[in-house]
Amino acid sequence: MIDIFTTGGTIDKIYFDALSEYHIGPTPLPDILAENNVYVPHRVTQLMRKDSLELTDDDRQAIHDAVAASDADKILVTHGTDTMVQTAMVLADITDKTIVLTGAMQPATLRNSDAEFNVGFALAATQTLPHGVYIAMNGEVFDPATTKKDRDAHRFIRA
Amino acid sequence: MIDIFTTGGTIDKIYFDALSEYHIGPTPLPDILAENNVYVPHRVTQLMRKDSLELTDDDRQAIHDAVAASDADKILVTHGTDTMVQTAMVLADITDKTIVLTGAMQPATLRNSDAEFNVGFALAATQTLPHGVYIAMNGEVFDPATTKKDRDAHRFIRA
Amino acid sequence: MIDIFTTGGTIDKIYFDALSEYHIGPTPLPDILAENNVYVPHRVTQLMRKDSLELTDDDRQAIHDAVAASDADKILVTHGTDTMVQTAMVLADITDKTIVLTGAMQPATLRNSDAEFNVGFALAATQTLPHGVYIAMNGEVFDPATTKKDRDAHRFIRA
Amino acid sequence: MIDIFTTGGTIDKIYFDALSEYHIGPTPLPDILAENNVYVPHRVTQLMRKDSLELTDDDRQAIHDAVAASDADKILVTHGTDTMVQTAMVLADITDKTIVLTGAMQPATLRNSDAEFNVGFALAATQTLPHGVYIAMNGEVFDPATTKKDRDAHRFIRA
Repeated sequence: MIDIFTTGGTIDKIYFDALSEYHIGPTPLPDILAENNVYVPHRVTQLMRKDSLELTDDDRQAIHDAVAASDADKILVTHGTDTMVQTAMVLADITDKTIVLTGAMQPATLRNSDAEFNVGFALAATQTLPHGVYIAMNGEVFDPATTKKDRDAHRFIRA
Repeated sequence: MIDIFTTGGTIDKIYFDALSEYHIGPTPLPDILAENNVYVPHRVTQLMRKDSLELTDDDRQAIHDAVAASDADKILVTHGTDTMVQTAMVLADITDKTIVLTGAMQPATLRNSDAEFNVGFALAATQTLPHGVYIAMNGEVFDPATTKKDRDAHRFIRA
Repeated sequence: MIDIFTTGGTIDKIYFDALSEYHIGPTPLPDILAENNVYVPHRVTQLMRKDSLELTDDDRQAIHDAVAASDADKILVTHGTDTMVQTAMVLADITDKTIVLTGAMQPATLRNSDAEFNVGFALAATQTLPHGVYIAMNGEVFDPATTKKDRDAHRFIRA
Repeated sequence: MIDIFTTGGTIDKIYFDALSEYHIGPTPLPDILAENNVYVPHRVTQLMRKDSLELTDDDRQAIHDAVAASDADKILVTHGTDTMVQTAMVLADITDKTIVLTGAMQPATLRNSDAEFNVGFALAATQTLPHGVYIAMNGEVFDPATTKKDRDAHRFIRA
């Protein structure tokens, strides 16, 4: 069983014309997994719908508690990219699970989104990596303790 | 360095109206990797453009030789799904590399293709799995020796 | 009221992996009209699902009769491109309606399909053109009597 | 010859992650017309890249002057939907051309955008309608003098 927790972020953004703005919408994870015929047992839980710049300590604690309470040892967390490393560090004390965080630079609703590729990549990582916490972005697996988001290059790099 | 070898299959099919048929086209791998901002060093080599039902023993030997000759120890092979297991078995004697085979049930040119998800998934597998040969389809990693394609269910299963 | 009759053709083709072939599926018209928030009253009737090279005289007569029996004076017919002109000529004796035929060179299921553009184009034509029969393809309105499909150029031209 | 003038608006919005905002980008018109194999002679001129709520009287005058100076009598203007009616009224004194304004409720970069459908629809309208100024949205042709945008319903209606 893979427990998937969604928290918001760019990956979940949808376009609302009424306000001409981009809002966090419902997670696209169920659709992505269905479209790609993913049979491996999994559960999707939407914890929150927040831009990661707006996550509070309480929010990160809530994510931590949900992950720690899971009976699965394979965890995928979708998350905004801006503070993904921060949340990963909060999860670091959970040592009996493989926890992978991913997100997207472009919303899943965009034609050229990286959402599907990243979710596929991260789903493999949850099943193949040993216990620990990881960032999976740009086709690479990163150790949160030594990585950061390079905004201008639209990718994560080793700090 | 990840060496990516493309061989054809549904993942590479494009629609030609002139003949009202679906033909194998150039591999979409470079576009997929670029669109998803994959920075990890990689090389894409198009070995052939064949439906996997049309691969001959010579073709599979050519794939084997290209993989064996690679100086990389992370190999991704995109391949038609119909005889993916067969090619994987031919590669089984290469024991000093992580070799992952993937493809797609729906061409990359389709709006709801599984191509991007599968390539993302397989790219993670090449970087995280120990040496050996694997099938990566439907969000799961399979041992070629114990798997087969279930045509009606549009997925791979443990035989 | 715009009466829309669908008959098959490339616009309706969907990809079946089980047979590795492209089959005519249900018409994408309802989805296209919903996605594009088309409010003008309309009705969609699927008459048949045939490649236009396989339409018989009886089929074309059936299309003719359905159009003639419609109480609407604005008719859109989606049709395979190979014999679209032929069907248009069969409809030529219906003089009290604006009848527009369109289709697609690439199935609606393809990422870069011309289906949506062509349906939008044709829907405007049904509402603005005087009574008569027209082909609407490649961003142009053609008189069936003086047009033909140029297969190699993937478009319709004045003969 | 159809003269196409682009001014910005939602149809041209692209997603910049660096600022997590949606910005007006280059017009997608050339790509849309190429993808849909539009052969009818046309020219695309990007006049500005502005959200239509930010257009000034000088901007609307600039649009007016570009249209009036065109040697074509078929004009398509892509425009933000919020003040499309306002610009249409400014163009009303140009009586020797067919001028059609369209835009999109969802950016062209979105998977389910109405951009392609609307551009196809409007392109037909420029070729079939008599001289005058029109709004083409939601699969309908509107007289600017008697129409307005219904924000909540995401469409244009007769006022």
